[in-house]
Amino acid sequence: VDHRAFPEQMIALIQRLAVRGAPLIGVAAAMALGRYAAEPNRSDAEIRAAASALRASRPTAVNLMNAIDRLLRIYGKRGAAALLPEAQALFQEDVALCESMSARGAELIQNGDGILTHCNTGGLATVGRGTALGVISKAWSQGKKIHVYVDETRPLLQGARLTTWELQKLGIPFTLICDNMAGSLLRAGKVQRAFVGADRVAVNGDVANKIGTYGLAVLCRHHKVPFYVVAPSTTYDPTCLTGAKIPIEERGAQEVRGVWAPADSPAWNPAFDVTPKDLITSIIFEDRTW
Amino acid sequence: VDHRAFPEQMIALIQRLAVRGAPLIGVAAAMALGRYAAEPNRSDAEIRAAASALRASRPTAVNLMNAIDRLLRIYGKRGAAALLPEAQALFQEDVALCESMSARGAELIQNGDGILTHCNTGGLATVGRGTALGVISKAWSQGKKIHVYVDETRPLLQGARLTTWELQKLGIPFTLICDNMAGSLLRAGKVQRAFVGADRVAVNGDVANKIGTYGLAVLCRHHKVPFYVVAPSTTYDPTCLTGAKIPIEERGAQEVRGVWAPADSPAWNPAFDVTPKDLITSIIFEDRTW
Repeated sequence: VDHRAFPEQMIALIQRLAVRGAPLIGVAAAMALGRYAAEPNRSDAEIRAAASALRASRPTAVNLMNAIDRLLRIYGKRGAAALLPEAQALFQEDVALCESMSARGAELIQNGDGILTHCNTGGLATVGRGTALGVISKAWSQGKKIHVYVDETRPLLQGARLTTWELQKLGIPFTLICDNMAGSLLRAGKVQRAFVGADRVAVNGDVANKIGTYGLAVLCRHHKVPFYVVAPSTTYDPTCLTGAKIPIEERGAQEVRGVWAPADSPAWNPAFDVTPKDLITSIIFEDRTW
Repeated sequence: VDHRAFPEQMIALIQRLAVRGAPLIGVAAAMALGRYAAEPNRSDAEIRAAASALRASRPTAVNLMNAIDRLLRIYGKRGAAALLPEAQALFQEDVALCESMSARGAELIQNGDGILTHCNTGGLATVGRGTALGVISKAWSQGKKIHVYVDETRPLLQGARLTTWELQKLGIPFTLICDNMAGSLLRAGKVQRAFVGADRVAVNGDVANKIGTYGLAVLCRHHKVPFYVVAPSTTYDPTCLTGAKIPIEERGAQEVRGVWAPADSPAWNPAFDVTPKDLITSIIFEDRTW
């Protein structure tokens, strides 16, 4: 590993989603910056350039900006040597944040619940137990009999690829569905509660999360099923007043077209959407429920 | 081609969806039965067995049962020789049904409309111009500037594979989306109207159609966007009082798991859902709007 290139390597991993999940992106970017800054003779300009590049690697999840900004504040006060320990602190804190959110969210789950979730929000998306999936695994570990319905989460199938894998490892019963089956599932009364994560929470409580979250929130409202967002305070953006101000990453059309649509089909590929607070039953942070 | 095996071959084509689309299934099954009955020395038992097998090849689209039942009534009155001409009449009638539905539906489309559709309902799903996609192509042929948003329609991607192809051939501007993006698209105000087809219309006006239709209807209601079903009267089932009585085909889990989910992941794969009449702005038949 060429440590001089480490921020670039991490940026590439983040951009191709090998490292993904809002909390994990923040910690991973901080670790990359901390490790980079710990090299001998690193200049101020190099450190600031690396911080800027990491901070800009993806636009929507604010954990990334929050983590880099926290390291830059420490850097201003205590210099380069303080960055790696601060990144390591962020790493440890994420584990604790996950535990707190999970314990608080698990109280909402009843024995026998069918639980719908979207995308991947577990150990593959955080350093710790996860956000929404952390809540689910916590409830299971408390002995509650639950059944998890997993949205496959097109186009990149994080639900089908990652959440199923985590649930299998955990031994939690689940059923994979296509995203467009959630309506029928809700109508059939199979779902008592929905839990999702978040990529950014605005000051007014609007939430950006994986594309499809908004539609799911509307469906839950229609069926009077509680819809919960689970997020650490590192996902909160005090500078973003409403969801309308959250930048939504648009990714390439090829992710939607796959190998099956005509090669030149125009396609729209927003990676996230915004759910207004009034469709969210509550947002579960590590220290409060909103 | 072994004409003795022709019903079996058609059943296989229908079951693997090489022939699909409610109107087309009905006509194709009728043609197979008519051709089979036209062979010399075909026995009454053979004809009735072929009719039963074709009729049972898929459970949800009632055009299939309606078409076979129509041929069996003719058979009872006029014998085997009458079946192929009757099937050919059904074939021709479907073209005319499509034209009538399309002309009636196209009146609802305004210049500049964004139109959302689901699955494939055009020339690849009928003998003629199509149902929902027939309406869209008719409006386009009338010079209305429209833009079509195409749900990819997981798991079998009829929107991404077939509707995009038809729209390209027709020269109609479109954008392909993943099913879970419809909510964001509606919220962004891009959609003025939604048009879908149907696999069965019950006596109370509930409609079975491709999985995802129900969720889309809920989203349209939430955003106050008119939601239209376009269907020929061959899709109406006078013996089925409500949507709850419509048999919904469940297909194999592998279609949902693909090659990306863990091989033993449990998955739910209903091919259709039921949309209650109260979520449907109107049903456009060839001769009336309900």
